[in-house]
Order: sequence, then structure tokens, then C-alpha cells
Amino acid sequence: MEKIGVGLIGTGFMGKCHALAWNSVSSIFGGELKPELVMLAAVDTQVAAARAQDFGFAKSTSNWRDMLAEPEIQIISITTPNQFHAEMAIAALEAGKHVYCEKPMSSSLGSAKEMLEVARRSGRKTFLGYNYMQNPMIRHMRDLVKTGDIGEVFQCRIELDEDFLADPQHEWDLTCSAATGPGALDDFGVHAIAMLDMMDLKISKVMCRMARPYKTRPDQEGRSKPVENYDTTNVLFELTNGGDGSFLFNRAAWGRKCHFVIEVFGSKGSVFFDQERMNELSIYKAEGPLAGQGYTTILSGPTHTPYDCFMPVAGHGLGFNDLKTIEVNEILKNIQGKESFVVDFEKGIEYEAAINAMISSHETSTWIDVASD
Amino acid sequence: MEKIGVGLIGTGFMGKCHALAWNSVSSIFGGELKPELVMLAAVDTQVAAARAQDFGFAKSTSNWRDMLAEPEIQIISITTPNQFHAEMAIAALEAGKHVYCEKPMSSSLGSAKEMLEVARRSGRKTFLGYNYMQNPMIRHMRDLVKTGDIGEVFQCRIELDEDFLADPQHEWDLTCSAATGPGALDDFGVHAIAMLDMMDLKISKVMCRMARPYKTRPDQEGRSKPVENYDTTNVLFELTNGGDGSFLFNRAAWGRKCHFVIEVFGSKGSVFFDQERMNELSIYKAEGPLAGQGYTTILSGPTHTPYDCFMPVAGHGLGFNDLKTIEVNEILKNIQGKESFVVDFEKGIEYEAAINAMISSHETSTWIDVASD
Amino acid sequence: MEKIGVGLIGTGFMGKCHALAWNSVSSIFGGELKPELVMLAAVDTQVAAARAQDFGFAKSTSNWRDMLAEPEIQIISITTPNQFHAEMAIAALEAGKHVYCEKPMSSSLGSAKEMLEVARRSGRKTFLGYNYMQNPMIRHMRDLVKTGDIGEVFQCRIELDEDFLADPQHEWDLTCSAATGPGALDDFGVHAIAMLDMMDLKISKVMCRMARPYKTRPDQEGRSKPVENYDTTNVLFELTNGGDGSFLFNRAAWGRKCHFVIEVFGSKGSVFFDQERMNELSIYKAEGPLAGQGYTTILSGPTHTPYDCFMPVAGHGLGFNDLKTIEVNEILKNIQGKESFVVDFEKGIEYEAAINAMISSHETSTWIDVASD
Amino acid sequence: MEKIGVGLIGTGFMGKCHALAWNSVSSIFGGELKPELVMLAAVDTQVAAARAQDFGFAKSTSNWRDMLAEPEIQIISITTPNQFHAEMAIAALEAGKHVYCEKPMSSSLGSAKEMLEVARRSGRKTFLGYNYMQNPMIRHMRDLVKTGDIGEVFQCRIELDEDFLADPQHEWDLTCSAATGPGALDDFGVHAIAMLDMMDLKISKVMCRMARPYKTRPDQEGRSKPVENYDTTNVLFELTNGGDGSFLFNRAAWGRKCHFVIEVFGSKGSVFFDQERMNELSIYKAEGPLAGQGYTTILSGPTHTPYDCFMPVAGHGLGFNDLKTIEVNEILKNIQGKESFVVDFEKGIEYEAAINAMISSHETSTWIDVASD
Repeated sequence: MEKIGVGLIGTGFMGKCHALAWNSVSSIFGGELKPELVMLAAVDTQVAAARAQDFGFAKSTSNWRDMLAEPEIQIISITTPNQFHAEMAIAALEAGKHVYCEKPMSSSLGSAKEMLEVARRSGRKTFLGYNYMQNPMIRHMRDLVKTGDIGEVFQCRIELDEDFLADPQHEWDLTCSAATGPGALDDFGVHAIAMLDMMDLKISKVMCRMARPYKTRPDQEGRSKPVENYDTTNVLFELTNGGDGSFLFNRAAWGRKCHFVIEVFGSKGSVFFDQERMNELSIYKAEGPLAGQGYTTILSGPTHTPYDCFMPVAGHGLGFNDLKTIEVNEILKNIQGKESFVVDFEKGIEYEAAINAMISSHETSTWIDVASD
Repeated sequence: MEKIGVGLIGTGFMGKCHALAWNSVSSIFGGELKPELVMLAAVDTQVAAARAQDFGFAKSTSNWRDMLAEPEIQIISITTPNQFHAEMAIAALEAGKHVYCEKPMSSSLGSAKEMLEVARRSGRKTFLGYNYMQNPMIRHMRDLVKTGDIGEVFQCRIELDEDFLADPQHEWDLTCSAATGPGALDDFGVHAIAMLDMMDLKISKVMCRMARPYKTRPDQEGRSKPVENYDTTNVLFELTNGGDGSFLFNRAAWGRKCHFVIEVFGSKGSVFFDQERMNELSIYKAEGPLAGQGYTTILSGPTHTPYDCFMPVAGHGLGFNDLKTIEVNEILKNIQGKESFVVDFEKGIEYEAAINAMISSHETSTWIDVASD
Repeated sequence: MEKIGVGLIGTGFMGKCHALAWNSVSSIFGGELKPELVMLAAVDTQVAAARAQDFGFAKSTSNWRDMLAEPEIQIISITTPNQFHAEMAIAALEAGKHVYCEKPMSSSLGSAKEMLEVARRSGRKTFLGYNYMQNPMIRHMRDLVKTGDIGEVFQCRIELDEDFLADPQHEWDLTCSAATGPGALDDFGVHAIAMLDMMDLKISKVMCRMARPYKTRPDQEGRSKPVENYDTTNVLFELTNGGDGSFLFNRAAWGRKCHFVIEVFGSKGSVFFDQERMNELSIYKAEGPLAGQGYTTILSGPTHTPYDCFMPVAGHGLGFNDLKTIEVNEILKNIQGKESFVVDFEKGIEYEAAINAMISSHETSTWIDVASD
Repeated sequence: MEKIGVGLIGTGFMGKCHALAWNSVSSIFGGELKPELVMLAAVDTQVAAARAQDFGFAKSTSNWRDMLAEPEIQIISITTPNQFHAEMAIAALEAGKHVYCEKPMSSSLGSAKEMLEVARRSGRKTFLGYNYMQNPMIRHMRDLVKTGDIGEVFQCRIELDEDFLADPQHEWDLTCSAATGPGALDDFGVHAIAMLDMMDLKISKVMCRMARPYKTRPDQEGRSKPVENYDTTNVLFELTNGGDGSFLFNRAAWGRKCHFVIEVFGSKGSVFFDQERMNELSIYKAEGPLAGQGYTTILSGPTHTPYDCFMPVAGHGLGFNDLKTIEVNEILKNIQGKESFVVDFEKGIEYEAAINAMISSHETSTWIDVASD
């Protein structure tokens, strides 16, 4: 069994999630390429050391650049805030490392393009963290759509709602700053586009409108401070296949914790998925006697590969963190030159371009074409 | 107990629905004004006679104009196809009858305006059939929203999907003809607008895009005939209160039978309703310990008046036809000068104006203001 | 069209429900036998008169025996408390009327047997009110089971829970009195047995245990008064086909409003129904690829006859009161000698016998055979 | 940070599940006691070696007794079939190891008692694998019940259904053999009892009936072979607090994959849990205006500790394997003398005694007392 050395930057939500995945992937999937956890980087030296011990990394550092010169590291996981992605990914690629970066690629289309250019020159592999699509039920949906089980697709609706900014008294913080991006669109948009792409649905035109449920939020002193970006974003789009669709994003949606809903309508049926019930997929097929037609709710199970690698019994349930482990396994397969299901920088830049078109649409209140190159 | 003479035009889906309501309203509600079923009009003489007997009307006719001269009739229910509404309503009003017309008012804004003018001159009462809003759970939603239970509302999403045109082999018929209206927007749009209005939410601007899932449909000989209107319609809008929202309409949505979903987000909570589970309302309130927060699904019951008039026990369930009986009772209360919850032509013309703005938006691909007068 | 004269005793929950059904049945179903509402009886003269006017009965009385001599009445609806059923039904039958009596037949097996004997002698028709089973979705379940769609049935579970006695402070009233029957078993038991019977499932042996969540309840003066019957009842049973099952009844089940759940397991699939979502039926069939198997939730629609008589579109929803209208239509068909789906006294006595076996089981703590004759 | 050496016997469903948990527990929880994966035992030498590498165990063996003499091992995970539990646990305890054994304790009450005796003598810690109860939503339910949020509990219903034996053509295998235990009761019973115990509900009396949906199953040659144990088991019980309840177990329940449903009724409310939607808990509280009462469905989140150790955002979802990681963390806390939530052999023997009473009840068709000592 071969080994691949891993460096991880970040120990927050996604940092831990990556650590768990790197830790578990061999137990779950076996496989011929086994991760070796070489170094963990965190801003604080002590945190880095403590987390490295918990997560099973051999070394730790407060300076992520230490990884660049570390010959035992072949791939670097980047889980820092978006504005640091470009610098880190470029440095890692130039140091000859593969890069596994959390979505979105970067906080601007310009820097994302630079990341792509460096990646192309480097000959290294790039991967973006799009774990939702690794869900066996999502993959099953993809297969149903792509094999024509629901006929020709003419509409896709996606909602992504959470309530982490639903409280108007939520203190003004970086998430409210224009510098970090447009807001809900930035948080959720690329996930939605990736879902379309996965099903071979491409956006040709967009109409986007962003809004601010709360114009101001209290700062630390309790004074009203203007919110600079947008907590809700609604998008209409056309697909290159002539179909249409919508994205509804809301990060101030009281009650919605991870309401990532995907609904696809075709000429022979429809499918429905909701991340809050991530082990279920509902499908309606217009076949058989009408009296017996209805949505069939499938529970995830071993027939929905790779659920079978986690457990041999249906309906017991995967969790969110398991999706990252599946993603890491796809990355390992990709590095070994096997067939795999990953999002690389080439795809990533496509998604960012669509996001950019949405921003333009919002700014101009017009329909904007999404560049096809 | 006073009596009010009723004439009914039409014996189809809505004709029967009106007949049931006029038949049942006194049994359900008691009340001081009792309908007397005077005359039923249908195109075919024999059908008219047979249905009159079934429905309990004293007389029948194949010529609806016979009702105009009938002194015992004070109110006429119009349940014919949309293109006949204007002529019939105007004639009835001019003959001094109250008019109860199924939605939408008419097949064009021009004729709807004429209806309104005649109504104003006539001094008679006008009513439009918007039965969904008579659902006790919908009314409960309205009350929650209007009393501020979910705080200040900043977004409303409405979906209305059915699948009666989902089959691409569905034969070309009048529903596919431009003459009958824009399609899904015409079938569903005013219902959605009425829901907003009911909650005091007014649209200020719209962006609308309609689409054709199937460009052609087979005619009676099996030849491809171009579909002239639109089976899907997506709308983004702004509200006069600064909020926003969306309408997603699809009458080719396999699996959706009456997926009329209304979702409202506010600063303190949110509500969710789905007509396919019309006896339920879900509400999320951001109060109490976070560990106990979630959507509370309320089952309709006697505390949700006027459910109590139908039965004294909760959770047993009202049906779609019951909503029309509630509507008829509101109409009787209105005629008696009591507080009531109805949609008249004044409201109706507002809704039609918003629909018209959507059509303009689709045609020009621009945001269109909705006239406020 | 022929007419049938109707007398109705009672104006409470079920009285109103019968009145509505008698009023609506011709509008819904057409048909060759049209009810004529002749006389309404209620204890109070003024109530009788007022309700007669609301319900559309020609005459009213405070003495139900007035109906017996009324030649225009051919059928009498009995909706009074259980303890009056026997006296009224027997008198009506002896007066040559058909009888339509709310379930259960009577408050004792002895008097129920007497009712049956008189019925047999009288040559009149008898009908019991079992409206739940008239639900098109329940009938669809029955058909699926009887045609073997889910294979050989080996288990049926039924729950019936409501919360009208869930509050321990609910004042002691007649429902708590042993005189009115055993409690939850009395309220719910025959409904459950009727469901089994409908699917040709017969109970051979029972084990029953009743319990008192609250040993006492406050009387009108607030003093603790012992509860004499049982708010919860659990039953295990064997079926004559070798299968088994369970009944769980609870009328102190906070949150359950009409949780009448029926679940049937067979060798090829299973079905699931819940009255609180009475327009849905879920079926699982073990066929096709395992990856696509799941419960299919069917929404009621025109293909589930006689939903089509109420409206031509699926998913709009029937209500509880509509079930009674279907039942009345079945009764009219039965009286005309047509194929129909009703519960008569012959069936009723079978159900009562099974209830009696359950009471014996509770009293003796042993398994009791259910007599098959 | 201290270390604890782990030995694991078994590499099947539960073997892998334990391996994952031992691997992940420090990454998830941090903590002062870090597992060191010392040795893995499997029947086949090569399997043992391969899985040891995947799972991260330093050594492997085909002879589990090799672990006994291994000084670096302090705790042994036993995940073999039930009939091997006693021998292995006893040997491990006698060798001075802590034991972590999958449920149930053993295949007979006698050997379970022996295990307990040895455990008491050994002074070592014992743990049984009851992962469902480690679910944060289950724990939340426990807390609600124990703190009186739903008042005094008077009824608990538990269903546990799966369909791994639903196919009548499922080949006769060990699961059908009397030697392995009574069947569904053996597979599911202790889980249900543990749930009651967790909420301080104790069974005093049981009535049990087991049944065989299919009397025979095909053997490898396709001949009918009698099924020796029971695929369905229904139990009524009384609680020591005067309440009652039921267990319904079915391992031939088409469509049910892990339908572990727990429903508790109290004087102030009720709770509902279904493992197939393991990230949800529904609670009904009889408080506030009746019009707003309904089941509140809570989504798991960071406020439901230790969900927060897995991720900082609600509604993203834990999976079945995560429950084992929580259990392992509780075991580590227990070993360190901290407050913990585990099931040891003392508890385990109580559960087995209740199972034994159920078997006796089935055999004698009588109510059987559950010994309280």
C-alpha cells in the first residue's frame, strides 16, 4: 500500500471535517493509497499542537508556509476563510503539492482565474470541497436524471436556506461585510451550480436579485451598522437545453438549518431531495396505473454505493461528515488515475463565472449571459 | 329567516362545487340568510334539467339569460370558462343581481376593467371565487403574519404546481391556446397574489419569465401542433414594504397534484403551508431555548374557526369543497352587511393588474412596476 | 327519480354529519334515489325546529317516536348516545323503517343481539356508521390487500389515538363512567375491527389490557372522583389466516387528534395509512431494483373512485364529512339492490363479539377465542 | 495525554463500526485519554492483516486469544456473533482487560450471568454496545422525559422493524435457527428495553407473543426448511410506575429499514422519535393557546450536545456511525472516572432478564413478572 502525505491548514468547522475524513477514509474504503497525516497548520501555535495530537497529525505549525518545504507532504487541504484561498493554493501548487481547497475557489473571480492558471502550469491536481454532491442519494438522483429515468429535464429548482443570520440582533460581523463577498450568493451559490453541473445542466442566462432583510445590524457597542451585502438572493435562469429554473437562497430563514432542496422536473417524472433529510430521495415516475402513482421515498442503503462501504444495512443513515470522507476517497482515486467524481479548478472557475454573471445581473437589473467557454 | 335566491351558471368542476356550497351552507353555518336554489343554467337542456334535480335547483335552462329576468334570483354564480365571465357578469349586474364569479375576473385586463365599472355603477355586490384563502389554516397563517407573530415579514415564496399538462403526449387543447391566456400564469397567478394581499403584502415590481417545457403537442390526428402559451412561469418580485419574494408556477410538474406552497419569512419566525396537506400549518418561532426550537405542525381543529362549524373535533380534516362552503358563508355575511372575508371586483382588478405587469415583464425581459392605484 | 324519506334523530357531531350527507348526496352522486328530508328529532323543541330549518328538514319534533308513524319516512338516522341506540333502532325497525345507526350498535352485547334479531324479523335494511372505511384511500388499501398486491398478509397493526381526555384536569364526565362502556375500547375498537374485516382479516384470539393514565379526575366541585373505565387499551391478536396483529388505543394521547393508523405487512410489500393525512396512502412493493424501492405516497384523486364524484382533479383533498356522504350513497345503492359497501347489523354483531372477547381477556388476563359464528 | 491500548475482535458490520469509532474519537472529542489501536483479530489471517492496515491497528491475528497476553491492550472490543460473547468476554476480563461487547450480552441468560459474575470479580470495567441511545436526539428525549417536560409518563410504545427477512424466498440461514435465539426478540428486544431504562421506566410485567410470517424458508438446495424462531414479536407490558406500553418487533417488515420508533405519552405532552429520521425529534406540549399546539420537530444541532463536537451548525446531520463514536467517548470518560452514559453488564443482565420473561410469557401464554432484583 502506497502512502500520500497530507498537510491541513485550518482547524475550524471544515478543518475538523477534513481531519476526520483523512483519518477515516482508509477504514471505510480500504484502497491502495493511504493518507499519512504529516502536518497541521493553525494560526495559534498551541492550538495547532493540541489539534494535531487530537487529529493524529505528526507535526504542527502556526506558519502554513512550513508545509511548502516539507517533502513528505503531497497534498494540502485548505480550509481557511475564502480570502486566503488564492494565496495558499498558489503557493502550494508552486511548491509542487496537490491542492484540496474548500469551496468557493476564492473571494474574487480574478484571483480564482489566477489560481487556475497556476494550477494548469503546475501539473498538480486540484480539488474543491463540494461534499453535498458526494451523498449517495444525490448521486442516485444524478444517475436517474442522466439516464433519462425522468425523461427530458426541463426545470430545476434549488433552494438553500439557513438561519444563522436570521436574528436581526445578530451582531455585525465579517459575514455582513462587502469585502467577503455578496452574501448568501457567495455562501450558497456554487453549491447550487455544482448540483446542476453534476446533472449535465448548464446555465445560459441569469436574472438575479439580492436583498437585505435587515438594513442594519448592531455592532459590538450596540450601534446600528449598515449591512453591506445580501442575506437573500433569488435567481431565475435559462438552461442551455432550453429548460429553466430558479435558485432561492436565504441565510436569514428562521427554521431552516440546512434546507438544501433540489427539485428536477422532466417529461417522465420528477425528483426531490432535501439535505435536512439527507438519507432520503423522492422520485415520481409517470408509469403504471395512475391510481398507484406517487412520490416514492427511497431510504439510503447499500445499493446506493458507496453507502455499502459505511455499513451493510439500509436506513441506518449517513451523516454530513461522512460525505467528506467519500470526497476524500474520490480524490485519492483521482490521484491514482482512477475514475472519480471530483470538482477541480477547471470546474470551479466555471461555477465562479456563473456567480459573476449573477452579480452583474443584480447590478444591472438585466438578464446576463453566462459565458460558455 | 330571510331567503336569497340563487342562480348558477355552469355544472363542471366549479359548477358542482358552487352547487354543493349553496346546498350545505345553512346546514354548516345556520345563519339568518338562507339560499334558495332557483335556477341552474347549462349549455345542454337535458344536462341542465338533470343536474338541477341532483343539485336541488327548482328550475333549469340552457339559456343563462333566462336568469336575468327572474325576480326570485338575487345572486348569480358564474362558473363558466374565463372568456365568458365578462359578458355574464355585466349582464347580471345590469339586471340588478349580485355576482359571484370564479377567478380570474376575465381573460383580459380590458374586459375586467369594464366589469368593475359596471359593478361600481350597479350598486350590486361582487364576489370572486378564491376558496383556498378560506381554509382555516390559511386564515390562521394570515393572522399570525398580521399580528406580528413571526415579526416583520421580509420574504414570501409561493409555489403552485400541478401535473395536468405534464404528459408531453397530452393532446393539444384549449389550455394550450394563446387565446385563453398566458398559461400557468393565468391558471395560478391570481391565487398567489391573493395570498399575498390577504397578508397585507403588496407587490411593487416584478420580473417574470415564462417557458414551454414542450414546444409542441400532438393534435387529434397526432400531428405536432405548436403550444402557444406557457406551462411554467417563474416570477421574482419586490414588496412595497421592502421585502421580496418569488412565484414558481408549473402545470407540467409530474407528481404535483395541488402543490400550492406558501412560505413566509419574518424577523421572528416563519410559516409554511402546502395545500396537498391542507389541514396542516407549520410555524417556527425563534423563542424559547434553541434546543427546543423547530417547526410546529398544527392540525386544523375547532379553535381554527370556522372549522368548528363543520365538526367539534380536531384533526379529522376539512376537504377542498368545504372551502367553497366557507366562502359562500362569507358572501352571505357580506350581503347582510356583516364583517366578512371576501374578494370583490375592486380587489380582483388589482390582482389582474399585477398579472398584467408580469406579462409585460416577460415580453420585455425587464423589471416592471406594478401600478399602485 | 324515486324519493326516499329520511328521519334524523340527533343534532350533535354525528347528527350534523348525517344531515350534511343527506343534503349533499344527490349533488355529489346524482343517482336514482333522492333523499327527502322529512323530519328531525332533537330533545329540545326549539333546537329541533331551528336545526330542521338549517338542515332542510320539513318537520321537527322533540319526540323521536313521532317518526315511527310518519308514512313518508322510510329510513331513520340514529345519532344519539350509544345507550339509546337499541331502543330507537328496534322501534324504527318494528315500525317498518330502515335503520342507519351510528357505531357501535349498542352499549351492551345483549341489546345488540336483540337489535339484530328484530332486524332479521323485520325484513328492513340496517346500516351502521363506519365512515372511515368509505375513504377512497382506505378502499384503495383494501383493494391492494385483497388482490394480493402486497402478497399474503401476515400482520396488521392499528393505532387509534386522540387527546380529548389527555388533560388530567379534564372534568369527570360521562365518558369516565363505566356505565357508558369500557372507555377507549368502546370509542375506537369497532373501527379497528371493521378495518380488518374490510380486508378479509378475521381475529381468532385476543389478549387485551386496559389501563388508566389518571386514576381520578376532578368533579365539578374539584374533588377527585375515580375514573371508572379505561383511557388506554392495548390488544394483541391472532388472525384466522395464521397472522397476527395489534391494536393500540389511547384517548389521552397528547398531540394525537385523529391518529388512526393502519399498517399491513405482506409477503410482497406493505401499506400504511394515517387518518390525520386522510388523502394519502403509502405503499411499499418489493419489486424492481432495490435501489429504487421505497414507500410510494399516493395522493387521492379521481382514479380512486368515488373521489371523482367530488371533483375531477387530484390532490385537492376530501374531508371527513365527505366520507359520510359516500356512506349515505352506499346505503342508497344498497336499498336499491345494487352492489354496495356497507356495514349492517350482521357485521356489527360480529364486531361487538370481538370487543366482548377483548373485555373478557382484560378481566381474566388470558387469551380469549373470538367466536366465529 | 494518556493512552489506552485497544484490541478489536471482528471486522464485520460492528467490527468496522468499532474501528471507525476508535479511530475518530480523539479527532471529534479531543479528551485526555487517546486510544492506541494495538491489535485486530479476525478468523482469517489475511483478512486480519489487511483490515488492520486499513483500520490503523499495529498488529493483527487470527487467534483472538493473542490479545489476552498483550500488555499494551487495556480494553477489548468484542463484535463477534452473540454465541461467542461469553467466552471472549470472560477470557478478556480474566486477563485483566476492560471489555466492550456488542449487545446482547450473550445468547443465553445463564452465560450472561456468568459474564456478570466474572466481571464483578475482575474489577474491570464492562460496556455494552447500545449506540442508538447515544444519539443526541434520543438523549434530548430522555432529558425531556426525566425533567418532567411532558409530565408524568404513563405510556411508552416502541416499534423496531426491518425487512432483512421480509422476502419469503430469503434462504434459511443461521438467523432462522433456534440455536441463535428467539428471533426478532433477540435482535431488537434489548434495544427497546434500554430505551425505557434510559428514561427511568422499568417493566414490571410482560405478555409476549411471537409469530412466524413464513413457516418455512428454502434451504440452499431450494427445499422447504422449517423456520425455528420468530420473525415477529409483540409485547404488552406494565411499568412499575403504573403505566403501560408495547413493543412491536418485525424483521420481515417490507419497507422498514430501521424503523426504530419510540413514542412516550405523559400528562403534559408527548414525544416521538424515528431512527430512520435520526436527526429529528418531535415533541408536543400541551401549553399555550390550543390553536398553536402541534408537534414541534426539532432538528439536531450544536445545542444538543455532543452534536457540537461533530460540527458547529445545526441540521447538517449525524450518521449512524457517529453514534458509536459518541459511545466510545462515553466509555473513555467512564474509564477515567468521569460522569458518563454507558450500559455495563449490571444493566445488561437486567435487560436480559426482561427478555427472558418475555420468552416465558410466549411459552406459557400468560403474563409474567419481571424480577426486580
